[in-house]
Amino acid sequence: MDFKPLSGREFPRFSAIKTFFRLPVAEVTQAFDVGIFGVPFDGAVSYRPGARFAPSQVRETSSLGRGFHASRGLQVFDRLKVADLGDCPTVPIDQSQTSQRIEDFTDRLLLANKRFLAVGGDHSITLPLLRSVHRKHGRVNFIHFDAHLDTYPTAWGCEYHHGSFARHAVEEGLVDPHQMIQIGIRGPFVGKDDLDFARQKGIRVFTIDHIRNGSLADFLNGLPEFTGPTYLSFDVDCLDPAYAPGTGTPVPGGLTSYEVQRILRALRVRKLVAGDVVEVSPPYDTSEITSLLAVDVLFEMLCLMSAG
Amino acid sequence: MDFKPLSGREFPRFSAIKTFFRLPVAEVTQAFDVGIFGVPFDGAVSYRPGARFAPSQVRETSSLGRGFHASRGLQVFDRLKVADLGDCPTVPIDQSQTSQRIEDFTDRLLLANKRFLAVGGDHSITLPLLRSVHRKHGRVNFIHFDAHLDTYPTAWGCEYHHGSFARHAVEEGLVDPHQMIQIGIRGPFVGKDDLDFARQKGIRVFTIDHIRNGSLADFLNGLPEFTGPTYLSFDVDCLDPAYAPGTGTPVPGGLTSYEVQRILRALRVRKLVAGDVVEVSPPYDTSEITSLLAVDVLFEMLCLMSAG
Amino acid sequence: MDFKPLSGREFPRFSAIKTFFRLPVAEVTQAFDVGIFGVPFDGAVSYRPGARFAPSQVRETSSLGRGFHASRGLQVFDRLKVADLGDCPTVPIDQSQTSQRIEDFTDRLLLANKRFLAVGGDHSITLPLLRSVHRKHGRVNFIHFDAHLDTYPTAWGCEYHHGSFARHAVEEGLVDPHQMIQIGIRGPFVGKDDLDFARQKGIRVFTIDHIRNGSLADFLNGLPEFTGPTYLSFDVDCLDPAYAPGTGTPVPGGLTSYEVQRILRALRVRKLVAGDVVEVSPPYDTSEITSLLAVDVLFEMLCLMSAG
Amino acid sequence: MDFKPLSGREFPRFSAIKTFFRLPVAEVTQAFDVGIFGVPFDGAVSYRPGARFAPSQVRETSSLGRGFHASRGLQVFDRLKVADLGDCPTVPIDQSQTSQRIEDFTDRLLLANKRFLAVGGDHSITLPLLRSVHRKHGRVNFIHFDAHLDTYPTAWGCEYHHGSFARHAVEEGLVDPHQMIQIGIRGPFVGKDDLDFARQKGIRVFTIDHIRNGSLADFLNGLPEFTGPTYLSFDVDCLDPAYAPGTGTPVPGGLTSYEVQRILRALRVRKLVAGDVVEVSPPYDTSEITSLLAVDVLFEMLCLMSAG
Amino acid sequence: MDFKPLSGREFPRFSAIKTFFRLPVAEVTQAFDVGIFGVPFDGAVSYRPGARFAPSQVRETSSLGRGFHASRGLQVFDRLKVADLGDCPTVPIDQSQTSQRIEDFTDRLLLANKRFLAVGGDHSITLPLLRSVHRKHGRVNFIHFDAHLDTYPTAWGCEYHHGSFARHAVEEGLVDPHQMIQIGIRGPFVGKDDLDFARQKGIRVFTIDHIRNGSLADFLNGLPEFTGPTYLSFDVDCLDPAYAPGTGTPVPGGLTSYEVQRILRALRVRKLVAGDVVEVSPPYDTSEITSLLAVDVLFEMLCLMSAG
Amino acid sequence: MDFKPLSGREFPRFSAIKTFFRLPVAEVTQAFDVGIFGVPFDGAVSYRPGARFAPSQVRETSSLGRGFHASRGLQVFDRLKVADLGDCPTVPIDQSQTSQRIEDFTDRLLLANKRFLAVGGDHSITLPLLRSVHRKHGRVNFIHFDAHLDTYPTAWGCEYHHGSFARHAVEEGLVDPHQMIQIGIRGPFVGKDDLDFARQKGIRVFTIDHIRNGSLADFLNGLPEFTGPTYLSFDVDCLDPAYAPGTGTPVPGGLTSYEVQRILRALRVRKLVAGDVVEVSPPYDTSEITSLLAVDVLFEMLCLMSAG
Repeated sequence: MDFKPLSGREFPRFSAIKTFFRLPVAEVTQAFDVGIFGVPFDGAVSYRPGARFAPSQVRETSSLGRGFHASRGLQVFDRLKVADLGDCPTVPIDQSQTSQRIEDFTDRLLLANKRFLAVGGDHSITLPLLRSVHRKHGRVNFIHFDAHLDTYPTAWGCEYHHGSFARHAVEEGLVDPHQMIQIGIRGPFVGKDDLDFARQKGIRVFTIDHIRNGSLADFLNGLPEFTGPTYLSFDVDCLDPAYAPGTGTPVPGGLTSYEVQRILRALRVRKLVAGDVVEVSPPYDTSEITSLLAVDVLFEMLCLMSAG
Repeated sequence: MDFKPLSGREFPRFSAIKTFFRLPVAEVTQAFDVGIFGVPFDGAVSYRPGARFAPSQVRETSSLGRGFHASRGLQVFDRLKVADLGDCPTVPIDQSQTSQRIEDFTDRLLLANKRFLAVGGDHSITLPLLRSVHRKHGRVNFIHFDAHLDTYPTAWGCEYHHGSFARHAVEEGLVDPHQMIQIGIRGPFVGKDDLDFARQKGIRVFTIDHIRNGSLADFLNGLPEFTGPTYLSFDVDCLDPAYAPGTGTPVPGGLTSYEVQRILRALRVRKLVAGDVVEVSPPYDTSEITSLLAVDVLFEMLCLMSAG
Repeated sequence: MDFKPLSGREFPRFSAIKTFFRLPVAEVTQAFDVGIFGVPFDGAVSYRPGARFAPSQVRETSSLGRGFHASRGLQVFDRLKVADLGDCPTVPIDQSQTSQRIEDFTDRLLLANKRFLAVGGDHSITLPLLRSVHRKHGRVNFIHFDAHLDTYPTAWGCEYHHGSFARHAVEEGLVDPHQMIQIGIRGPFVGKDDLDFARQKGIRVFTIDHIRNGSLADFLNGLPEFTGPTYLSFDVDCLDPAYAPGTGTPVPGGLTSYEVQRILRALRVRKLVAGDVVEVSPPYDTSEITSLLAVDVLFEMLCLMSAG
Repeated sequence: MDFKPLSGREFPRFSAIKTFFRLPVAEVTQAFDVGIFGVPFDGAVSYRPGARFAPSQVRETSSLGRGFHASRGLQVFDRLKVADLGDCPTVPIDQSQTSQRIEDFTDRLLLANKRFLAVGGDHSITLPLLRSVHRKHGRVNFIHFDAHLDTYPTAWGCEYHHGSFARHAVEEGLVDPHQMIQIGIRGPFVGKDDLDFARQKGIRVFTIDHIRNGSLADFLNGLPEFTGPTYLSFDVDCLDPAYAPGTGTPVPGGLTSYEVQRILRALRVRKLVAGDVVEVSPPYDTSEITSLLAVDVLFEMLCLMSAG
Repeated sequence: MDFKPLSGREFPRFSAIKTFFRLPVAEVTQAFDVGIFGVPFDGAVSYRPGARFAPSQVRETSSLGRGFHASRGLQVFDRLKVADLGDCPTVPIDQSQTSQRIEDFTDRLLLANKRFLAVGGDHSITLPLLRSVHRKHGRVNFIHFDAHLDTYPTAWGCEYHHGSFARHAVEEGLVDPHQMIQIGIRGPFVGKDDLDFARQKGIRVFTIDHIRNGSLADFLNGLPEFTGPTYLSFDVDCLDPAYAPGTGTPVPGGLTSYEVQRILRALRVRKLVAGDVVEVSPPYDTSEITSLLAVDVLFEMLCLMSAG
Repeated sequence: MDFKPLSGREFPRFSAIKTFFRLPVAEVTQAFDVGIFGVPFDGAVSYRPGARFAPSQVRETSSLGRGFHASRGLQVFDRLKVADLGDCPTVPIDQSQTSQRIEDFTDRLLLANKRFLAVGGDHSITLPLLRSVHRKHGRVNFIHFDAHLDTYPTAWGCEYHHGSFARHAVEEGLVDPHQMIQIGIRGPFVGKDDLDFARQKGIRVFTIDHIRNGSLADFLNGLPEFTGPTYLSFDVDCLDPAYAPGTGTPVPGGLTSYEVQRILRALRVRKLVAGDVVEVSPPYDTSEITSLLAVDVLFEMLCLMSAG
């Protein structure tokens, strides 16, 4: 199979059954390099739900995606065979069972030596994804875009929720905190100990002030290089609500779409083995601008993957 | 305390901290007759979430409520002392813990010999509410407005979800199926055995065709009388999506707002001990018309309570 | 001038500067029969504002209007010369000054022996309109569509607001309460004395129950005939919120669009001298269905005017 | 292949790549009975566009569809093998080329002896669909739900547009006007000659008044029987805008969802060879209630097909 | 009483009766430091109304607020006792009476030696608030964020409206024009004399060009210090419509959320005695991003108050 | 005639029949300098339609426009007589006929020695506008704001569509590619040859990276000067979707409203003979922020015209 997007100059972009980037649907056994799949689960959110509809909306909006990345000079779909794997099974009302199904689905994919991009769902899905990645690749580097640290403690007596995955990822040894960066952090914080975890573990936290205090170019130059297997998790609430209104816990004062693009283009990642885009909430996504950004981020991650 | 709504002719209806019907907030120990409380939980829905925001939106919309029921000739708040009890504690990501908290909250209320109206939340909240009511009042009569039977089997391996509460309520002996009616039922159905449960248990099912085949007056006259302690559960999807777009699993071909009003006014219930309005989903509730209907239904239930 | 609507088969309906029914704009001195004008004022509403934008939105939506009334067999714009007079001056933040400007504007129009249709604005505009009509025609018959009686007392210390105009119209002797009907009334009521005014004055109140208790045909046949100069005021909240979400104080359980059409077609009015459509609130009018109904009502009133 | 919908009790309804009724995607050569396909084209509309997005939205909403029709007692997907054929190629900016592509696509399908349901798109797509059907089945019976007659003349110098297809279908001899009914007609009309075409050709026109003047049962009993090959075209604007806001040229005073369901259930059609649902315009479809109705109509047409 | 926000880790943020920052409701006689109250009045706006609903929506959105300000290193609610005082009485249709009620309400509060934050309402409410503050504190420093100067002349014959408060505040001697800054000003202007008032009175006007012409740091360093009693009035239209769509008279080319945060953090104010956030218009606030910003601004003002 | 906007201080901005900037409507024969007209056509778009409603919405939003440009120190309507010419005739379903009508309309205007601003419509309208301009003024300089190059090849077999106008304008010799700039370009690109056309023809392309890599001041200083007759075409999708959600093919990473304002103010254009604003799509324009920007751009173009 060809694993090329359906042409928008032959079939209008609003037509056809919606798949990510208008790519073919494939089974794990087929000869693609990267599989994109949805993880429609929002059962771990603390405020606005709706991310369960994100895979469907991102598929729809990805019809506007193209294949050539101008500033990279890269024709992605010539370099990588990419397929839509459909959605991972979930149990909408049970986080624990959902995690198990995500791990099973991803294990099978990694066993077949594929790379993947997952489209959430809320941020709780990243933990089971990382568990699978860890089984395959060992402890990985971790690039985390977010307004929130997601190293928060138990809430309502629940250890696992969409704001605690990063803490568990570190505590379970899935990611290397010394090769972990968090970008776009800006609170709001409950208390001053919110940042203790990152400090103690050696995680580098790039708040919005770090990014904006000097020139963007300076910030980009200061980003570390990631040589080993790396995972990139992108929570759309790293963006300002003006750019990403369609999310569950928006925080004013965030990144712009252009900053996100420039940071993604500046990342030096040798081996991006997997990634995700999470927390797109379609019921709050006026004019689909948030899901359009999610498509952009997926495209940048494919570019990163095609490079190494 | 007076337990009267704030006057709209003194304080504009858009002003003041929002409570149900602009009533005072009270503790369970105070001298009110009926407590209204929210149960902001949508962790058991199968399709569109959002009902977690319903208590807040219904409070807002209930500002438009009044106190005199013209066709009943009844000044409700002269007859009943009604208070807003705030929201029952919930665990947004854990149905089982939420159920326990609902039972605890409601037990305390019933122990104090109060009647109550609960504002969901999804329909899964009715089961713990009924368990409490059963502990207080024994097996109750049950009036159930819904498009769906909610006697469905396990889904995604989960026994408890928002479409199975009515089955559990019967199976646990909380309600008397021979004193149970379901109004507005119209599917869609997965299979022809969907109706078997109701038939076997002796539940009377009034589909939309039953209601519309003759005159409305004839239908109303044929409604049974309920003499013992009775519980009324109102799922807004019994209404047509034109009248109640803001819900999780809308079904075309439903009741009109007027039919609902007439049925509620025609019910002969001696002792309405409790009730609920569920499945209002504000993110989908254009122009707040669904929550406005929920307010109407709450008002009718207060009228029923004031009568006996 | 021709006073015909711009043809939709020559100029697409979404094109051209928006006037009511795509009619020519005229000065009061020109040779038209009926003038339609906007009264963009919502400074007397008690809950949701926005009706100030109604003249503009109704002009936009009236592009979908046509000229032939099928069930009446009537080509309206062959029978009547109708023009758009623009908007009456208003003072958005001063009800009293606005009333004066409305009276001045209307006086000038009536002095020129024109009939008119006013597009509100909130219902407070009807009082100054009636004052002008009274100066020209004396005490008139009054047909009032509404969910509310609008005979309410002072609110927040203000004698004049959008819920008291009907009381003032009677008290000032502008309309004949014995030749006055109120259609669609359903509350909600603050108290049982809400209906006292109508009873004492001899106003016939047709609640939604009156309309629905028998067949629609029977209700229509029972409507009185109006022989003298008559004014028709149409508050869109007489309709159910499903049909008219775009209004300030919606009330569930209202009329359907078809019932409104049938009632308007059944009215026997010899001499409709003026009318208004009020309380369309565009910010709440999803998909413009409320303003589309307003257009329909304006068209029916033009038909009534063309008949006598 | 099995041609069964994906189970909602195993895979949540919000998950999976969206196909009509969650059915498998198939090629025309496969062994299914009925193919559903999209025709995403709105290049012939006169007012609000957007119907190009309807196939995608109807696929999304059809996730809520089920398989058992309670009042018919029919498990559709046990009786018929139904598949999603994807979208027919269109040229978004060229009606004439689009028509040719629709005919080619449909010819191939009919040549393979399949029946079909097309999801528009605007009503102009029905003409090429009927041309194909005529080539296969000869002149067919025609059941047409609509607010408008769609027998209108040239507009803006264009013979073919979304309001003229029915005239061309008759003039080209594709449908038998004596075996043709139009249901839900209510204008608005440009002139009194709008109805001349229907009268001259012998088309039976059921206006909203015909349907509502007596009891619904009487109307249903009076519907004719269709014995030969029959085509059913359903324009969602036959419904009232309260029930179907998401359409291009809404007309107040229309059918309710329940009336539509009852009429569709009462139709006596021996051999429904094809059908379509057109004029759903997602940008105006608040809370997706219009597309949900479209799904209902598709389901009723599948039931009709399974019967003969 | 404790005057701490309800914990989001115990009670989900979408639950509970909505108060500002989930704080306790208090009477003026209680032992709090700062009272937040709503002033739901939009009777002085010139274009889009709706700000009357802002107190309610800002309460709802403030559920997402937290207590720790990371860049200030400040736990606000440990430093200040803050309470929700409910809404100030208003007369929705009478600006003059409303002003009197605002003054009365605020006088009582200031007499009790409280500081306050008012949530408008349109900008006309600032004048009566300043009158009260002046009675208590004398002529105050004034920090004014706005797109508009609000020193405009009479409109429609009305001296007082939402665009003239700043002029009156200076003319009545309530604020010291030499200790007054206006931030974010960018027109649009009616004429070149719009700026004359500021020039003549010695008000420093920081237009968007002043802020953007150099580096943000340079601008922040150039801000004056305010040593005496100071009032801060924040009109959300100082922000660009992308960041604050929910307002009455939006102006393109405005501040970003981050700039607003940085300016608020850079302000050197010794004694912030009171403040307000005005012109949030919920009917136009897609996805609540404007009210979320209003919450952010309220939080920054609390931080400023806690500092001195 | 005076050709001044209706005063907002006499007639509220929400009142009056909507014309561009509340200017008088004029015929081509009248004594104005610049005519603004709508071209309501979206029959050439590739994705989201709706731009047909832009002239109407931009008229509505332009009510918020003023006359004095503060940073230019310019009272535009004292310098230029500007009129609203209504809408150019179009054929909504035929691009070729529409082009002809646009040329005819514009020819007549240019023959009368007027300058113009056209409000689209999609970007296909610029080609016929340029043809007319070329007939009058010969080959013109061309300033093109856009996310897309619009030099794309045939799509779906159609040579002319909204993404190919710039290529045709160059190929037909209407504009001078050496005096042509494209501002805001950022893809997405289908392939690396997308930029070949511009390179070969000598068009200067300013991508978003060009604009943002240095300081804005540096970029502005580097803009070329245009001495001969110049045309400016502004596609709102040059803006980021956060600033312009209401458009057909949004692209993340775009210009801000302030950048657009500064670029427009920095342009050195001796003789702006005509311009357009295109691709505003009202159905996707939440809170009207996109059309508000379009008004701003029109105002800047009037300023440019008043200067030379």
